Formats: sequence, structure tokens, C-alpha cells
Amino acid sequence: MYFIDLIGTFVFAISGGLVAVRSKLDLLGIIVLAVATGVGGGLIRDVALGATPPAAFLDEWYLIVCVVVGLGVFVLSNKINPEWRLVRIADAIGLGVFAAAGAAKASTAGLGPIGITMMAAITATGGGVIRDVLVVQIPAVLQRDFYATATLIGGALFAVCFMLEVPLWASTAITITVTTGLRLFAMWRGLGLPVARA
Amino acid sequence: MYFIDLIGTFVFAISGGLVAVRSKLDLLGIIVLAVATGVGGGLIRDVALGATPPAAFLDEWYLIVCVVVGLGVFVLSNKINPEWRLVRIADAIGLGVFAAAGAAKASTAGLGPIGITMMAAITATGGGVIRDVLVVQIPAVLQRDFYATATLIGGALFAVCFMLEVPLWASTAITITVTTGLRLFAMWRGLGLPVARA
Amino acid sequence: MYFIDLIGTFVFAISGGLVAVRSKLDLLGIIVLAVATGVGGGLIRDVALGATPPAAFLDEWYLIVCVVVGLGVFVLSNKINPEWRLVRIADAIGLGVFAAAGAAKASTAGLGPIGITMMAAITATGGGVIRDVLVVQIPAVLQRDFYATATLIGGALFAVCFMLEVPLWASTAITITVTTGLRLFAMWRGLGLPVARA
Repeated sequence: MYFIDLIGTFVFAISGGLVAVRSKLDLLGIIVLAVATGVGGGLIRDVALGATPPAAFLDEWYLIVCVVVGLGVFVLSNKINPEWRLVRIADAIGLGVFAAAGAAKASTAGLGPIGITMMAAITATGGGVIRDVLVVQIPAVLQRDFYATATLIGGALFAVCFMLEVPLWASTAITITVTTGLRLFAMWRGLGLPVARA
Repeated sequence: MYFIDLIGTFVFAISGGLVAVRSKLDLLGIIVLAVATGVGGGLIRDVALGATPPAAFLDEWYLIVCVVVGLGVFVLSNKINPEWRLVRIADAIGLGVFAAAGAAKASTAGLGPIGITMMAAITATGGGVIRDVLVVQIPAVLQRDFYATATLIGGALFAVCFMLEVPLWASTAITITVTTGLRLFAMWRGLGLPVARA
Repeated sequence: MYFIDLIGTFVFAISGGLVAVRSKLDLLGIIVLAVATGVGGGLIRDVALGATPPAAFLDEWYLIVCVVVGLGVFVLSNKINPEWRLVRIADAIGLGVFAAAGAAKASTAGLGPIGITMMAAITATGGGVIRDVLVVQIPAVLQRDFYATATLIGGALFAVCFMLEVPLWASTAITITVTTGLRLFAMWRGLGLPVARA
């Protein structure tokens, strides 16, 4: 689980670094956005649950991964394409892993089913929201896309499993599979949510 | 008090949903902004005071109210007008309720008079600030209007009452009445604060 | 140290108030930005480290200083120039002081060297990030400048001193001197960091 969590951090840090490059930030800005995107969701989760200092500050590997990714994106900036299938598949895996990690931590903190579902979504999408706010864009997750919805469904399934006393490893596997699967399916079919008539 | 707090959440969630519709967000974006606006101020208050996990995550009714409001705003989006007198009066009531709730919690956490006053304002206006930052607008509360000022005056009165050992119910009633009253008066007379010459 | 911390708060509050004036905010907006910039970095630090309620809410002098600065900036808005050498030198001093305060608090909270370095940078630049996000600008610290980098180097030196068991007063003096010195040197020579090719 810890290794998968680092992979999720790695993938999200890439997306942060790439957004920084597109926004013409300098080397430091690229590293900051890599860090903020990679560990931001987990930071919000830990601070909200009172698990301070957050895991991302106590275990140095999270920050090391993000800083190395930031340096790598800076060096390779004109060779990485965020539309690459591999980057987007990796992002979908990160989404599932973080949703499961958020739901698991929320369930042990005594939250109810709706709280668990919300915390799954916040952990999985919080880093991206911070990333977009820092470069003054409406968070991608708020705009037409089947992204956070996948984390909400995955988180809700975790909450159901938790109430049914399903073992942690099984709940985690179900949440990752469903969240990542739904996201990949949405990418493949171009699914989105309806927009209200203003 | 708890029931009134849910009413404040309900009203603020409506304002978040309406801003999301105007920003052309999808169904999920509308729900997210309803949740963020409805519970955001209380979340900041609880996290800052170390009361974690925040009340909005432990008591599911806050999130249920916000999600239902988000769905309702989505369905009725072309029938609700944020300029309606009813919506604006409800918003003024929410402002007073949240200012009192913030001041009360700050006073039991050991903050001094200025801290209590600040926490009243942060609790009452924090959700709206998160809402505006997410859709990349300068927070309405920072621009010319007699809005946060009403919460600061209400919060300062609570701090004075607290030092004079006025009973909690009376301090709460005074804060709600003054904050909501000042806000309604400002709406009625079009009051604002002066702007500096640049 | 406490007195120097208040000086840092004072200087950062000025920068917040001046940005508010440039963004044509009203009196309340000026005070809010003065407060957010003056105490924002310390708030993030304390909340992330679980030191709640934050020092800035428990010790009223921080908020008093910020509010008075906000009022002063409002009154003197057309007489203060943010490009003044004195304002910029004071800002560099605030940067060093806050970096040292963040590193010191992080070291006592059990963070490792990278965590200490990050917390120095977050404490020193967090207030400015909040200030810029509130007026919908890409945070100045993320754009080409040798600003946060100075705090990272100062914070890393503190972490090294901490591991070598250098006395607190000496580590603090080194961090302030190096951070402020690097910042002043960068201002004098117009140093910046490289930007990636998009």
C-alpha cells in the first residue's frame, strides 16, 4: 500500500510539474507545483482528520519523490506530453490509490459513510485543486469531466464495505479497481456529467 | 442552535450552487461548490481551533443538506434568481448564525477578544471565499460591500459579552441579531466601505 | 525572537495592504489582506504541525499589528511606494525571520531535514501565496524570482545545524542571515531561476 501510495504521489507530481511548465513558471515554481499536487490531497486529509504533522511531512520519501519529479519535468519539459496515454493511465491509477487511502484513513478516524466518501474525493482531487488555484485556473475537476465522480463512487463503495465489515485489503482493492476502472472507461468513451442551463 | 446552523448551511449552499451554475460547471461542480460554501467556513474554524475531525464531517446532516441543495439547484437552475429578496435575506440570516457559531466556538477554545472577532468573521465568510477562489474570482467579501464588517461587529459584541460573562444564549442572540440586522440595513440602504486612493 | 517575529508580521502586513490597494479593495479588504499576509504563513505552519489554536490567534499582538498596518496603509495609500528600497529590505528581513521561525517549530515537531526545509519555505512565503490567491494572481513566489529559493537554502541550513546539534540561537541567526542575505543579494544583482522550455 505504501509503495502504491508513492506511485500515486509520483504520477500526480508529474501532472503538477507539467501544469507549471505550461504556465511558464521557473524551476522553483515547477518543484512547488509538483510538491503541492503530489502531496496536497493527503495534506488536506491529514489536517482535516487531525493527523498532524501530516504523513507527507513525517515520511521524507513523499517530498523526495515530488522534488525529483519536479527536477525531471524541468529537464525533460519539451519531451513529455501530458496527453500521452501512459501519463493519463498513470493518473487514473493515482486517482484510485488516493481515493482508497483517503477512505481508509477517514474510516479509522470515526467518520460516517458520507464523510468517508467525501474524504476519498478530497484526498484524490485535492492536490489537483491546489495546483489549479495556484496558477489561477478553475480547477479541472470542477469542469465537465468524469473525474471526481469516479472517486465519489469508489469512496462510497469503501464506506459500504466498511459498514459490512469487509477486510481492509478487500475494501481497498475494490475502491482502487472501481475508481480507476471508471476513470479509464470515462476516458475511453469520453463520458462527462450534464451541465445546468443557466 | 443546531437547527439554525443547518439553515445557515442550507442558505450558503444555495449561494455556492448558484455561483457554480453561473460559472457553467457540471453537476458535480455544482455539488462541490454547494458543499464548499455550505461547510467551508465551519471547516476552517474547526481545523484552526484543532477541533478535528470537523463537525461537518462527523455529523452527516451538514453534507446531506449541501448535496441535496446542489441537486436542487441543478434541477431548478433556470428558476432561481440569486437577486431574489428571499435569497438575500436568507443569506443575511446565515451570516449572523455562522458569526455567532464561530465566536462561541472560539471563546471556548481560549481565544482572546480579537481572536473571537476574527473567528466569527472567518466562519461566516470563509465558505464564500473558498467558493469564489474555486471559480477564480476575487472574493466578493473583499470588494466594496458591508458584509464581513457586519460579522466583525457581531463577533466583537460576542467577545464583549463573553468578557462580561453574559450567558451564552444571550450572547448568541445578540450576535445573530446585530450581524443579520446590520447586513439587512446595509442591503436596504446600499451601504459600503470607503476605497483607498491608489 | 518574539519581537523580531512581530517585525516580520508588520512588514508582510504592509505588502498585503499595498496589494489590496492596487486591487482597488475597500478598507475591509485592505485589513483582510494585511492580516492574511502577515499571519498566513504562520497559520499554515501551526495548523500543519497540529499546534492549534495557532499562535496568531492566541497572542493578540499579531492581529493588532496587522489591523493597525491595514488602517495605516489605507490612510497613507497614496504616500507609500512598494518599490521603495526600505520596504523591499524590510520584506527581505521578514523572509529570513519567518524562515527561521518555521524551521525552528518544525524541528521541535519531529520533522526530518526535508520537512524542516519545506516548513521554513511555507512559513516564509505562505502569507504571500494567500494574498495573491485572494486577488486572483499567480503567486509572485512561483514566478521568476530568487525569493522562495532563499528560504529553502536558509531552511536547509537550519536542518543541517539541527542534526549537528548547533544551539537554537546560532541556527536561528544563521538561517536569518543567509536567507535575508541571499534575498538582498538577488535583489541587488537581479538574480532569477531558469524557466523550462515549454
